[in-house]
Amino acid sequence: MAMRIAAKAAGRGGGAELGPGRPRRADFTDVRANNLGYVLRQVRAEGRCSRADLAAKTGLNKATVSSLVAELIERRVLRESGSVIGNIGRPAVLLSVDTGYYASLGVEVNVDYMTLVAVDLEGNRLLSWRRAHDGAGSTPGKSVSALAGLAKRAVDKMDSEGRQILGLAVAVPGAIDHKGVVEDAPRLGWSDFDLTSRLRRAMRDPEYAVLVDNDANLGAVAEHRFGSHAGVADMLYLTGEIGLGSGLIVDGELRRGAGGFAGEIGNLLIEVDGRTGQVDDLASIRAVLAAIAEADRIAGTEVEAEVEDVVTRARAGDEAVIAVLERVGRALGAGLSCAVDLLNPEVVVLGGHFPALSHWLVPTTEAELHARAHPASAGNARIVVSDLGHEAPALGAATGILNDIDAGLMPTPLGS
Amino acid sequence: MAMRIAAKAAGRGGGAELGPGRPRRADFTDVRANNLGYVLRQVRAEGRCSRADLAAKTGLNKATVSSLVAELIERRVLRESGSVIGNIGRPAVLLSVDTGYYASLGVEVNVDYMTLVAVDLEGNRLLSWRRAHDGAGSTPGKSVSALAGLAKRAVDKMDSEGRQILGLAVAVPGAIDHKGVVEDAPRLGWSDFDLTSRLRRAMRDPEYAVLVDNDANLGAVAEHRFGSHAGVADMLYLTGEIGLGSGLIVDGELRRGAGGFAGEIGNLLIEVDGRTGQVDDLASIRAVLAAIAEADRIAGTEVEAEVEDVVTRARAGDEAVIAVLERVGRALGAGLSCAVDLLNPEVVVLGGHFPALSHWLVPTTEAELHARAHPASAGNARIVVSDLGHEAPALGAATGILNDIDAGLMPTPLGS
Repeated sequence: MAMRIAAKAAGRGGGAELGPGRPRRADFTDVRANNLGYVLRQVRAEGRCSRADLAAKTGLNKATVSSLVAELIERRVLRESGSVIGNIGRPAVLLSVDTGYYASLGVEVNVDYMTLVAVDLEGNRLLSWRRAHDGAGSTPGKSVSALAGLAKRAVDKMDSEGRQILGLAVAVPGAIDHKGVVEDAPRLGWSDFDLTSRLRRAMRDPEYAVLVDNDANLGAVAEHRFGSHAGVADMLYLTGEIGLGSGLIVDGELRRGAGGFAGEIGNLLIEVDGRTGQVDDLASIRAVLAAIAEADRIAGTEVEAEVEDVVTRARAGDEAVIAVLERVGRALGAGLSCAVDLLNPEVVVLGGHFPALSHWLVPTTEAELHARAHPASAGNARIVVSDLGHEAPALGAATGILNDIDAGLMPTPLGS
Repeated sequence: MAMRIAAKAAGRGGGAELGPGRPRRADFTDVRANNLGYVLRQVRAEGRCSRADLAAKTGLNKATVSSLVAELIERRVLRESGSVIGNIGRPAVLLSVDTGYYASLGVEVNVDYMTLVAVDLEGNRLLSWRRAHDGAGSTPGKSVSALAGLAKRAVDKMDSEGRQILGLAVAVPGAIDHKGVVEDAPRLGWSDFDLTSRLRRAMRDPEYAVLVDNDANLGAVAEHRFGSHAGVADMLYLTGEIGLGSGLIVDGELRRGAGGFAGEIGNLLIEVDGRTGQVDDLASIRAVLAAIAEADRIAGTEVEAEVEDVVTRARAGDEAVIAVLERVGRALGAGLSCAVDLLNPEVVVLGGHFPALSHWLVPTTEAELHARAHPASAGNARIVVSDLGHEAPALGAATGILNDIDAGLMPTPLGS
């Protein structure tokens, strides 16, 4: 009855017992699961295709393909959708991804809002909600209640449409360990907070998975699957919320590091315009607002309105505001040059509030990046703005579960 | 007749055509090749095992296992090595990796030496040569001749032992693109130098692969397969030659970035002991020697002797020398804190000359890393010294080819 999505554990820790001379612990996973994911991805890539097409494309024999397809249909991951007359004259049944049965939920909680996204197995938006939430001013318990309330409404809505929930994942601006414990989310005032367990309880121990991850990681996942540069192998995603976080796509996958904390970019030291400081202080949205407000303390609830005000003034030609944006752009370029040297990404995606400010920010960011990074690395790195905007982390949260299915961790429909 | 090792191309570039909503371009590779690699890795992990063991371990059926094993034996990758009487009483033939047929060659060229390593399919050392070479003072052409001369002697030696060469890979301290062109190797004075083609020609267009890669990348490959922390999923390797380079193992594999230039760590800005500067200037072996010589210019040919002198003086309690090492250690910790925040590795391996200096260097490096990096990331990162020493890049060069075979890119023996 219960549906579970197993957490990905491959290649994680535990290498010590392998000892010298052993190859890396790689994909000693189940061949069947690999093949299920392989067939699903092939169908997705083709849009619609027959079992014979699949056999030809995958190199698997027809009996194996039929068996894999039968399981995927039973699991409500694929469905039969019409038929075509082939060359030989016999009609071939076409397969496509079943977008009608499952829903995956992603939520983001941040200092001044919550976002919820629900998607089907193809990533089509079923729900997209955004509401004000004083994350900075709330206790952790109140935030959990608000999160659970929002999620429950979404679950009920999906239920009423006959959809089964695949999982609920939450994006949090902070350091999250592999177990979904928030080690530290300074702007929410959370530390060592087991959000996963708390939320599971608030949701009354649901049968589906409840997961928590870093907002930058999940933004990167969304960009990598749905953004304007989807599919790029090496991508650096910057959140651009009040604080600055980054998510790393390396060789086609999100990389979380040994403890789940990779992507902390805020502590990078930069020297720009005669000032030396950290990226988070000089190159964040907070740096923009602080410089313009000439006050270091921004009320958590007004970020969005303040950014809009900055945009309005910049559009009107306010030279002081434009100078601030250009200076923060330079600082961002200086910080990015270090990350680009280390990671050599193909694309750097600016998310959150950066797109709204990009017209004034990005030219100086690019100039500084090219002046500072190793020429070979800088030459590869294109700076682009997110077209998923503030929805990216919540969308990425919902997407992570889809990626697990693509990798072969198949769901089980209720009642089977 | 010819034996080729295909270059790994999966997941590299070309993502643009996938468009939004498509999953990452992943492992749509040949299932047979995957399974060949899978069986090989399983035999390697077990040491010796029967076909029945393999069927049980891999989940593949017995006929498939027999067919895969037959191909691996034909390709001289596995061999039959004795038999055991099982429970049922019938003797089962045992399989092991065939270490008697192939040899893989790795060479490192650096400012003051060349190293050559030959290994069999298990990574056992067949040759390990090191000789002085004035890389900094030679023209690129002279270095190619010296490299080719060394490699030819190794090829002849392997030939005389009846071994077939799998490939020749060269480690270079510089930025190398995906085609093996040295974009920039400042300490050798090379730029935009097509070492791969030049060396191929000097070796008279051999049937085996000739490859060129960055020394830090290859050092990381060696550490990840043979070092004291082999198999760890997330590792940062630092070269510790005259300049400072790094190689990134992320989620169990070497990551090269979009253009092949990942790991440039030298430009990171740090502020330590009241000085602001770049890691390569403040935390490299060059920084140690320059501070002690009180001269910024080190003759390329004397690095080894100078490091030995530093060790002798530190051992004798020379306070000025120890103070320099502690200061460089702090600078290294400051630089590492940025890389550790971004990558969250489990292990940081100090290679090259660092092990000789580690007694005085590492305590301050650790202290500074923990003071500066995000606590969650710093808590994960162990700093260890390489036990492969200066041989690591050449060993890694030879190992890369073995890793390709492990991944299913099988060699073809001559005459088949």
